[in-house]
Parts: sequence; C-alpha cells; structure tokens
Amino acid sequence: MAVYTDINEVELADCLKKYDIGTLLSYKGIAEGVENSNYLLRTTEGTFILTLYEKRVNKDDLPFFLGLMEHLAARDVSCPLPVHRKDGEILSELAGRPAAIITFLEGMWLRKPQAKHCRELGAAIASFHLKGQDFPIKRKNGLELSDWRPLWNQARDKADTVQKGLVAEIDGQLDELENNWPRGLPSGVIHADLFPDNVFFIGDDLSGLIDFYFACNDTFSYDISICINAWCFEVDGSFNMTKAMAFFKGYESIRKLEPAERDAMPLLARGSAMRFFLTRLYDWINVPDGAFVVKKDPLEYLRRLRFHQSIKSPSEYGLN
Amino acid sequence: MAVYTDINEVELADCLKKYDIGTLLSYKGIAEGVENSNYLLRTTEGTFILTLYEKRVNKDDLPFFLGLMEHLAARDVSCPLPVHRKDGEILSELAGRPAAIITFLEGMWLRKPQAKHCRELGAAIASFHLKGQDFPIKRKNGLELSDWRPLWNQARDKADTVQKGLVAEIDGQLDELENNWPRGLPSGVIHADLFPDNVFFIGDDLSGLIDFYFACNDTFSYDISICINAWCFEVDGSFNMTKAMAFFKGYESIRKLEPAERDAMPLLARGSAMRFFLTRLYDWINVPDGAFVVKKDPLEYLRRLRFHQSIKSPSEYGLN
Repeated sequence: MAVYTDINEVELADCLKKYDIGTLLSYKGIAEGVENSNYLLRTTEGTFILTLYEKRVNKDDLPFFLGLMEHLAARDVSCPLPVHRKDGEILSELAGRPAAIITFLEGMWLRKPQAKHCRELGAAIASFHLKGQDFPIKRKNGLELSDWRPLWNQARDKADTVQKGLVAEIDGQLDELENNWPRGLPSGVIHADLFPDNVFFIGDDLSGLIDFYFACNDTFSYDISICINAWCFEVDGSFNMTKAMAFFKGYESIRKLEPAERDAMPLLARGSAMRFFLTRLYDWINVPDGAFVVKKDPLEYLRRLRFHQSIKSPSEYGLN
Repeated sequence: MAVYTDINEVELADCLKKYDIGTLLSYKGIAEGVENSNYLLRTTEGTFILTLYEKRVNKDDLPFFLGLMEHLAARDVSCPLPVHRKDGEILSELAGRPAAIITFLEGMWLRKPQAKHCRELGAAIASFHLKGQDFPIKRKNGLELSDWRPLWNQARDKADTVQKGLVAEIDGQLDELENNWPRGLPSGVIHADLFPDNVFFIGDDLSGLIDFYFACNDTFSYDISICINAWCFEVDGSFNMTKAMAFFKGYESIRKLEPAERDAMPLLARGSAMRFFLTRLYDWINVPDGAFVVKKDPLEYLRRLRFHQSIKSPSEYGLN
C-alpha cells in the first residue's frame, strides 16, 4: 500500500483538461497497489482511478497492460477501462511520471474469501484466458523460471540468516524445477498476480479483475497454480481442498483442462510458490525496516512449496 | 499518511447493519490523516469516511471531537458530520478500535494555496471561533506551553546531532516563551492543526474544514498564529505578507481582533512554531527510518520561530 508521488491541484487540473471527464472535485491517495501511486478522483462526471506509474514499471509495457484491459472489457471480462483523452491517447504525464486515468470498478476485495468466491474466481480467470487469446501484443513474463535463479543469487548469501538450511533447500528445489519444468502446455495471456486484492466482489458476485501490471504471455495452468497458492490456503498454512475444488469447478465450467495440464499442476504450483517465495525473500532481505512497510513473510510460500512437493496426484487438489 | 489497521468485509458489513446507510459496495484505505486509519466507503446510499481511532487518540476525547463537528455543522460551519447509528450512538467498534462513520466532504486540499485561499481560510477559522463558543464540552490543549519543555526533554540529548547549537537555542527560547507568554486573551474552542491538508476547496471556494482531532479550548489568537505558520511561508522559507494580509482580512471580516491580540501575535507565532518544531523534532529522532515514512524537517519550524523573533511590530505581518 503506497502513494509514492504527491501531485498538486494545479498540475492535476491542467492534466484533466485533456480529458472529457468534467472538472475536478477531489482526489485522495489510496492505499492500494504496491508498484504505483493511485488516486481516487471525483469529478463532476463521476469517479475514476488515476495511476502514476513509478519506476518499477517499464513504460514500454504500458501499451500492453492498458491495451489488454480494453481488449478484455470489449469481450465482457469485467475490468477497469483506460479513459481516452480528447486526442485519443491513453497516457499522460504527471509529476514527471507516465499516468493513466481508468474507470472506477465498484466492489471490494475479500480478506476472507470462501469456496463460493473461489468458484467465481475460477470462471473469471478461465474467461480471461480464452478472451485474451486474440490479443495482438505480446509480453514476456519478467519473473519466469529462467529469472528465478538470478533472483535467488541476489538473496542467497543472506538466506541462511532467514532460516537455517534455506540455501541447500532452495538450491535443490531450483535444480528440480529447472530439470522438470513442463513445456508446450496451452498458453496465452495470463494475469500472473491474481491474489485476492486484485479481485473485486459485490456481495458474493465477482464484479471484476484489476491490476494487470504483471500480465504476460505464459502457460495458462501456471496462472491457475498462482490462484491455488493465493486463494486455497488458510491463515494457518493448511490447504483447503474445498476451495480448490470450487475453483477448478468454476474454471472448467468455462474451459476444460487437458490431461497434461492436470498432471503438471503439482510441479507448476511448486514453481509459482517458488516465484512468490523469491520476490518476498528478496524484499525481506533488501527493503529497510520501517513503521509503514509491511513485508510479507517469504517462509509462508516455502511451506506451500513443500506442500506441493508432497502431492502424489492432481486428485489431491480436488482435480478429478 | 497511513492505514494502520486493516478490516475485513465480514466485520465491516456487520457493523454497517447498525447504521441506516445502505449496503456496502466498496471500501478503500486512504492515505490521509496521520493519527488514525481512514477508509473511503461507498454504499448503495452514498459515500462516507470510516475512521478507526488508533491508540494515539484518547477514547475519552471522542465525544468532544465528534460533538464539536455536529455543533459546528448545525451552525453552518462546513465540516464532515458523524453519522448516527439506528440506536442513536455515533461510536462503533471495529477491529478492536473505536470507529465512526462520517459524511464525505467534497473538495481537495491545496498543495499550492494562494492569497485568495488564505482569505477564505481566515473567514472560516473566525467563524469556527465564534460558533464554537457555546459548545458545552471542554478539552484541555494537550500540546500547550507547559507541555513543551517535557517534550523537549525527550529530544534534548540528541538535539545537537540534528543541528549544532540547538540545545542552547531551544533552552533559551523556552525560557523566553515561559516568561512572557500572554494570558487572558479571548479564548474558546480552537482547531489547533489547521494546516492546508485540513482545509478543502472546490475551485477557489473553501468547501469545509476537516480533522478536528487536535481541537481544544485555548487562545483564539494562538490558533491564528498556527495558520500564519502553516499557510504564509513559501517553500524557500520566506514569509509571504500578501498571504498573511489576506488571511487577516478574511478573519476580521467575521471577528475583529482586539489590540492585545495583535500585540501578542509575534510571541504567539514563536510559540506555535515551537510547538510544531518540537513534535517534528521528537519524530525526527524517535521514528525509525523507512521507505514509506516521510518525516517532516523540524528545522523548517526553527527558521519560522527565528523569523517571528525578528518581528518588531504586528504591522510586519500585515496587521494594521
């Protein structure tokens, strides 16, 4: 949660003149998103989100992210929509940063999702996978298998101070993942970060998906394994098969999984647990402590990785 | 800016049942307020602010703060209004903290206020002073003259590491303030923290005052001196007499200053500069560094204090 860049009312009002969305009534920094600065804008025409892209986002990727939102929304995947300026552009510059105004998506993310919400999520991500297939722009996953070892090498020296034995364990896990990673599975555009805070609900109905800033071209079932890691474990670290079954039921109501995708699920889930373990570990070691920084425990994802390693058959996930 | 306490949708929806404000559509943590956690709520009935009072706020003071908002709003001082529950109460409990829902005040705070805004501010705070006079609850100022030396003593040991010579200078300044502090000036309820981020405007019109959590019974002209410190200095530290004249013009269009209040202004302004210098210094020394903590430079207020010390006559503030 963060607002990295403050903006003043003069530059903001100037910027809004380029759009056809009325005049400014208020803007408030909101504590959502960890990569960018986000403001809730209210104008005489309605409510919008203003995003300033901070330096962790590559400006060259913005046409992919924003174009994807437009592509999906046009195909009835509910998500926020970039607002075009009067000159047709969707990017502006504010406080020296690229900026976009997007429509406000009503709804809230669930701190306590239940199985019924996982089913909704499954159907939504399956729809995302199908509808994204004819999106013409491509983007490589910036945190795929081949990126994990370099990331690990930036944390490896200090890893045993986080937990004794970590170096040997992760070295071995990476070897296994690199030697056995499944290839040639159905692929296309994936969200790649579909944690609960990126899925909005109104009551029990999914109202839309947000935050497409990790989206990329990769394996659908890897995206699924991210959802399993993010949604189907309880606070105590235990796996909740009821939620996973509901998720898969929702997913397969829209897109059937191939046998090879099911068989690969335990290894893909180990991989996605590794990916989040590594970015959390990197932040854990490298981000300075401070009252407002909530660093996420990397070991939570190590425990998930170990759980997936223990899986003998996809049926243990509730996959029949 | 902060959201200290996260809340979940289950406890929030339960809490909202006690109010008559519709059902929940969304809630987002907002990066405003430094003492409490604030959420922007959207329900089927409108937009509201939910405040969770963190431990720096004394729960016993809440009837003063919330009652004052109701008292002033009933007398046409524009400010947010606490929403009563169906049972008549204005305080709830959420995530173990006292919580209140208040109406959403449209408008935004100005990062770059101009003289015309200072005039509006002057009229608004004069009206606040007059309309607050028959408010029946009393609250002592928790950061008044007698509190400054104890606060200083918690920072004094390390003060010379912030700037060489600080210990001698502040010791001397506190002696002078304690020996010469004006007594018996017109007093009543003051806001005590009327910085630009607590005053909302729509265009050039002041739309209301917010954040009454330092309000207390104290000297009106001390409150005025806080506004002068907070609004009438430029980024480079220079005093802007045009803004001060506009402020006083606005103030005196509603309430005339007595000669004793004018004469006391330089000393009161030194005092309010000291008060903000000391709380900033305390935070500077005691709050750990972190990527998300923006600690405010205490020396900015030391420079203001020195400026006020150089004032020979209230006319140098633009007071005739």
